[in-house]
Amino acid sequence: MKARSVVALSGGIGGAKLALGLYRTLPRRTFSLIVNTADDFDYLGLRICPDLDTTLYTLAGVPNPDTGWGRSDETWTFMTVLATLGGETWFRVGDGDLALHVERTRRLAAGEPLSAIIEDVARRFQIAAAVIPATDDPVRTRVVTPGGDLTFQDYFVRQRCEPRVESLRFDGAGAASPAVAAKRALESASLAAVIICPSNPYLSIDPILAVPGMRTLLQTSAAPVVAVTPLIDGRAVKGPTAKIMGELGIEASPLSVAQHYRGLIDGFVLDVRDRALKPRFDVPVCASDTFMATVSDRERLAREVFEFALSLDRSRRRIS
Amino acid sequence: MKARSVVALSGGIGGAKLALGLYRTLPRRTFSLIVNTADDFDYLGLRICPDLDTTLYTLAGVPNPDTGWGRSDETWTFMTVLATLGGETWFRVGDGDLALHVERTRRLAAGEPLSAIIEDVARRFQIAAAVIPATDDPVRTRVVTPGGDLTFQDYFVRQRCEPRVESLRFDGAGAASPAVAAKRALESASLAAVIICPSNPYLSIDPILAVPGMRTLLQTSAAPVVAVTPLIDGRAVKGPTAKIMGELGIEASPLSVAQHYRGLIDGFVLDVRDRALKPRFDVPVCASDTFMATVSDRERLAREVFEFALSLDRSRRRIS
Repeated sequence: MKARSVVALSGGIGGAKLALGLYRTLPRRTFSLIVNTADDFDYLGLRICPDLDTTLYTLAGVPNPDTGWGRSDETWTFMTVLATLGGETWFRVGDGDLALHVERTRRLAAGEPLSAIIEDVARRFQIAAAVIPATDDPVRTRVVTPGGDLTFQDYFVRQRCEPRVESLRFDGAGAASPAVAAKRALESASLAAVIICPSNPYLSIDPILAVPGMRTLLQTSAAPVVAVTPLIDGRAVKGPTAKIMGELGIEASPLSVAQHYRGLIDGFVLDVRDRALKPRFDVPVCASDTFMATVSDRERLAREVFEFALSLDRSRRRIS
Repeated sequence: MKARSVVALSGGIGGAKLALGLYRTLPRRTFSLIVNTADDFDYLGLRICPDLDTTLYTLAGVPNPDTGWGRSDETWTFMTVLATLGGETWFRVGDGDLALHVERTRRLAAGEPLSAIIEDVARRFQIAAAVIPATDDPVRTRVVTPGGDLTFQDYFVRQRCEPRVESLRFDGAGAASPAVAAKRALESASLAAVIICPSNPYLSIDPILAVPGMRTLLQTSAAPVVAVTPLIDGRAVKGPTAKIMGELGIEASPLSVAQHYRGLIDGFVLDVRDRALKPRFDVPVCASDTFMATVSDRERLAREVFEFALSLDRSRRRIS
C-alpha cells in the first residue's frame, strides 16, 4: 500500500513548532507543508519570506534558539556595517540568513518561481518534506489601523503589534493561484490528513485560505481537516493572536477559532486547560496539551493530532 | 589664499596605497581621487565596485590587512551558508563588505547615480577627501584572450590572470561621460597637481582615460600631471602589470609606461632602482623609492611626488 500523506498549513514560529513535530514523527517524504507568504516583503532590495525561512531553518535543524527566528550560529557583521552606512536596520538580518535572501532575490529576478527556489533550498538543507509557499503570486497582508494601512512587517516588527487592528486585507490574493505543488498535495488520493497548525488564524492561515481555490481544495480533499488551537486559556503562547481578536471584536477563545474555520474543518484540537469548553464545539474535539516547550512536546502533540485526524476518517462530517 | 587642490587617478590596491599617503599628507578636503569603475560587476545580483571599495576601506582605515581587499574585522558566515545553498562563491564577499554591496545595489536600483552613493558612503566613513567614480555610466573592461572575451573579474579572480591577454576593450566607454565631480575637480582653478597613481596603466588607468573628455580634462588642467611608476626593476609589486605588458608586446619597463602616458604627463616618478634609465625619458623624472611596505612609506612617497609635481609648475611642458 502506498504510504499515506499528510499536509499541514502553517505560518511562522508557532506553526513551525508543530510542523517540526509532524516532520519528526511522520514518514518524511509524505509530509507537505503549505506556508503563508503574505508576510513576505522587500527590504534592503531583498525579498524576505519570514514564515518560509523560519520553517526551513526549523526543519533543517538550524533554528536560532535565542530569537525564535533566523539561524543558529549566526553572526551580525552585515547589520553592524549597514548601520554605519545609514541603511535600514529595523528588521534584523543575520549574516547567514542573508545568504538565503540574496540567493532567493537573485533567482526570483532571473524568473524562477518562489516555489521552485524553496523546493531547491529545502533539498540543499536536506529537508525530506515538501515546503511549499501557498502561492507563487504576490499576496501581501495589509493591517488596517486608525493611523492608516501598514505592511505586515511594519505592524509586526517595527511597531511591535502596538497599533489597534481595525481589519486585515490580503492585497493580490484575488489574482493569486495556489502553488502547483500545494494543489497536487491537497488533491492526492493518498492524503490521510490536513492539519491547520496553531498559527494565527487571521494573520497566518487566512492569507493562505484567501488564495482562490485553496478553500475548495481543503473542502474537497480526500482527508479530514483538523485545526489545532493557537490559544491556551484565552492567550496565545507567543504573538498577538489574542490582542487582535479582541480588537476585531472576537472573543479570544478556541471556540471562536473553531467558528472561524467552520465549513473547513472536521475536527478541532483544544488545549487540555480549556477542556471545559469541549461540549460547546459543533465538530469533534480532542483535548491535548498544546504547549510545546521541548521537541518531544512537539512530537507528542504531532502524534496526538495525527491520530485524532485518522479517527475522523470514517466519521467525516464537514459543516458548511 | 585658497588651499590648492590635488587630484589623483587610481585603480585598486596598488593605487590606493599612494592614495592613502596623499590623503594623510595633503590637506584632506582639497584631495580628490578619481577611481576606475571598469572592474565593477554584478555578482549574486549585487553591484560590486572592487576599486572604489578598496579605496573607501583604505581611506576609512578599515582595510583587511591579510587580503589587501575587503574590510578588517571581517566575518564570512554569508559565504559559508551561500555555499550550502549552491550559490556562486568564486568571488569572496565578507559579511561586512556585503553591507556596502547591498546598500549600493538598492540605491542604484532606486535611481541614484553611483557618484552620489559613493560620496555619501565616504562621508559616513568619515573620509574627508572626495572619492569619485570616473564615470556614472557603465564602462566594463573586457579581456580578449585566445579562449574568448572575459569579463574583468572572470579574468582577474576566477582565472587568476592566467589567460594570455591579446587586447583590452572598455565596453560602454564611448557613450560615457566623466562624473560631474571629476570634471569639476580637474577644471578647478586651484588645482596644484594631478597624480596618476602606480596602478596598472592598461587595466586601471586606461579605462578612466577612455571616458570621452577625461583625457582633455587632464591636458587642459591648470596643473602639472605626474605619473608614478607601477614597475620596479621590470616587475609590478603585485598584480599582472608586467605579465600583461609582455603579452601585449610591450617591454615591461617604466619607459614604456611613460611612453604610454605620452601627451598626458608633465613628469614621471621612477623607482630609484631604475635610476639608470633616467636619461632616456623625454619628460622630467624624479627617482624615488616607490616600494610602499608601510604607511610611512606611503606618506614619504606622497610628499616626494607632490613636491616633484609642484616643481614642474612653472616649467610645464606637455608633449603631444
